[in-house]
Amino acid sequence: MTRHKTNPGDAEEKRHSCHRVDSVTVDSAHHRLAPKRNRPTARHPQGLSPPSKRDLYHTREACSPSTPTRRYLPLALCHLRLYSGRPRSRGVLMPYMSSCFPADDGADRGRREAGQSSDSKEYCSSDKDIVEVVRTEYVYTRPPPWSDGLPTIHIITPTYSRPVQKAELTRLANTFLHVANLHWILVEDSQRRTPLVTRMLRETGLNYTHLNVETPRNYKLRADTRDPRIPRGTMQRNLALRWLRETFNSNSSQAGIVYFADDDNTYSLELFEEMRSTRKVSVWPVAFVGGLRYESPKVNAAGKVYGWKTVFDPHRPFAIDMAGFAINLRLILFKPQAYFKLRGVKGGYQESSLLRELVTLNDLEPKASNCTKILVWHTRTEKPVLVNEGKKGFTDLNVEI
Amino acid sequence: MTRHKTNPGDAEEKRHSCHRVDSVTVDSAHHRLAPKRNRPTARHPQGLSPPSKRDLYHTREACSPSTPTRRYLPLALCHLRLYSGRPRSRGVLMPYMSSCFPADDGADRGRREAGQSSDSKEYCSSDKDIVEVVRTEYVYTRPPPWSDGLPTIHIITPTYSRPVQKAELTRLANTFLHVANLHWILVEDSQRRTPLVTRMLRETGLNYTHLNVETPRNYKLRADTRDPRIPRGTMQRNLALRWLRETFNSNSSQAGIVYFADDDNTYSLELFEEMRSTRKVSVWPVAFVGGLRYESPKVNAAGKVYGWKTVFDPHRPFAIDMAGFAINLRLILFKPQAYFKLRGVKGGYQESSLLRELVTLNDLEPKASNCTKILVWHTRTEKPVLVNEGKKGFTDLNVEI
Repeated sequence: MTRHKTNPGDAEEKRHSCHRVDSVTVDSAHHRLAPKRNRPTARHPQGLSPPSKRDLYHTREACSPSTPTRRYLPLALCHLRLYSGRPRSRGVLMPYMSSCFPADDGADRGRREAGQSSDSKEYCSSDKDIVEVVRTEYVYTRPPPWSDGLPTIHIITPTYSRPVQKAELTRLANTFLHVANLHWILVEDSQRRTPLVTRMLRETGLNYTHLNVETPRNYKLRADTRDPRIPRGTMQRNLALRWLRETFNSNSSQAGIVYFADDDNTYSLELFEEMRSTRKVSVWPVAFVGGLRYESPKVNAAGKVYGWKTVFDPHRPFAIDMAGFAINLRLILFKPQAYFKLRGVKGGYQESSLLRELVTLNDLEPKASNCTKILVWHTRTEKPVLVNEGKKGFTDLNVEI
Repeated sequence: MTRHKTNPGDAEEKRHSCHRVDSVTVDSAHHRLAPKRNRPTARHPQGLSPPSKRDLYHTREACSPSTPTRRYLPLALCHLRLYSGRPRSRGVLMPYMSSCFPADDGADRGRREAGQSSDSKEYCSSDKDIVEVVRTEYVYTRPPPWSDGLPTIHIITPTYSRPVQKAELTRLANTFLHVANLHWILVEDSQRRTPLVTRMLRETGLNYTHLNVETPRNYKLRADTRDPRIPRGTMQRNLALRWLRETFNSNSSQAGIVYFADDDNTYSLELFEEMRSTRKVSVWPVAFVGGLRYESPKVNAAGKVYGWKTVFDPHRPFAIDMAGFAINLRLILFKPQAYFKLRGVKGGYQESSLLRELVTLNDLEPKASNCTKILVWHTRTEKPVLVNEGKKGFTDLNVEI
């Protein structure tokens, strides 16, 4: 069944709806979605997203039309929802965390990754689980690229509700959609995962995991003053680190890179290819931080980092912005106690509080042509002026911005 | 010759350099670059960019490696420079315009489009022109999509030099790289086309035309106050309109859409598919304008636009932001006198000054589900704080940000 959407106007435009896929087998170990009729060529990162009722799994290949389509036409997406048991919370969540994923005791994690969970109904749906197509819609995107053998880049993005949130996430997703083997871990600073972010993620077509944890109010008090002592995003980043440790086995052969990408920065595509070869921790300059055009690691003739080209406190252990480094997933897994410190961290020391647990200066791998190229910009978006909004309750609040 | 770039680290990553293409034939009518060894499957918009010594033409297919590559690996780009005669300026440029393209008398334009120019050395290089590969480098992008039969979307973007310029253009290019049949007309407000923008454009892999015209100083005086009477970008948009009229024949069968996309806005991918079917002028809401969450055309039950949902002067003929409409190229060509008015235009009337020359309210085609969805956001980027820069002349000015 191929349906053509009729477009007004004289422009010739073809779109394809997808076939309905009523039954899909799920590879429980890797959460690879393989439809019975069409074997996907792209697949999801291994071991992502232990299925829960609240999780959405995406596949594009599963619903590609049987008639050949032009490679670059807007593609249709099928959204597949797994119907397995409700997730059980068994582990002990740290007091400042909540997660849609059950914590585990480590041993079970191994079983789960190997697809041998004794509780497969809850953690890994069996190969025969039935998946129902719950949505079929047009999505104006190309499938995100996937290549076996390339390390997965796990992008951790804290986000919070504000007028420009959807705009920021939209252009960020447009960038991420070019990056091969990207897995976006988006963590909302909220009591619940919001419908806006849920829909937006679902419609991007990206591989993603959607988490949330609310920063307690006493941490938020001075957030608007941009006081660096307020660790905005820190709990969210920590939750994502925890999720990675609960999801991936340190003995797994699956290579991965972890990068903290705030939702208002600007990222070149080259950046992601630079970080993909990170052995331990790679570093590079970041524009528009510390009151400078850019801050950068100092690199000597031997290609070793020996200090920090910053005006603000260059004697910090790691005087580097959150956007200026990536970490090999294995290092995250081998050092399970390494988190961003939440309390008593001076401004500018957040990054150091994590990195000092993982590496020494000597371990750092300079990227971006020995830190001479700017591949990421710490841009900030202005708060929009909405002065006419209050007067007459003007716009329709049902229209999502 | 296939060269593999060696990457440090244990991550498996493959990249391919391109073959050197020492001789390339140029289809002068369409500027389709066809290498002798590999016939391109994607091609450039018809009739773009009459070659001049200052123009760069891009092809990706021309330099794809002969060994099969994975579809989604970062691709290498060859940059090709045409060596033809210097462009001659024969037409009369309007006093506020300068262009890298010679103006013509209309008759010659027809010949040029048909590939029959009597002056092919200058305007259309012959099929046998020699093209030399001047750069070979890695570009972390996928080829922009192209489908014969889809209308080309000509995106007109005025831009000016400022610290965040490259960041803005980078994330904009990342969005545009998803859009099929997109041709980016980037117009700098500068005396000369800058190396920064030239390089950036060349490296995106997009189909583009790079123009420049400097707004005279008396127009710029109050630019920083964001006084709407200062028509920032207006001369640049007008130059692009003029370029379109000089490049395309109104009798051409090549369908096209014209859209004005400022470099700081945020665009969903869906927006471009909505505008692609524009017959005359299509319209939709824009977020964060007029002191509101969004401004929108008012659409009645019959799907007709009958007014404007704005607080600021809703009685303007077209109370719509620059990002809120697209125009069929044929309309631009059939109404060659329609430009944005430069002088004596009240704030908020720029858009009306062009649109009233092209359509009436009754002609407007509402898009985005009858103007109920937000697909574009008038975001603004903060001016970065560079307070530590002056103190010690801190960062290396040779490092481009």
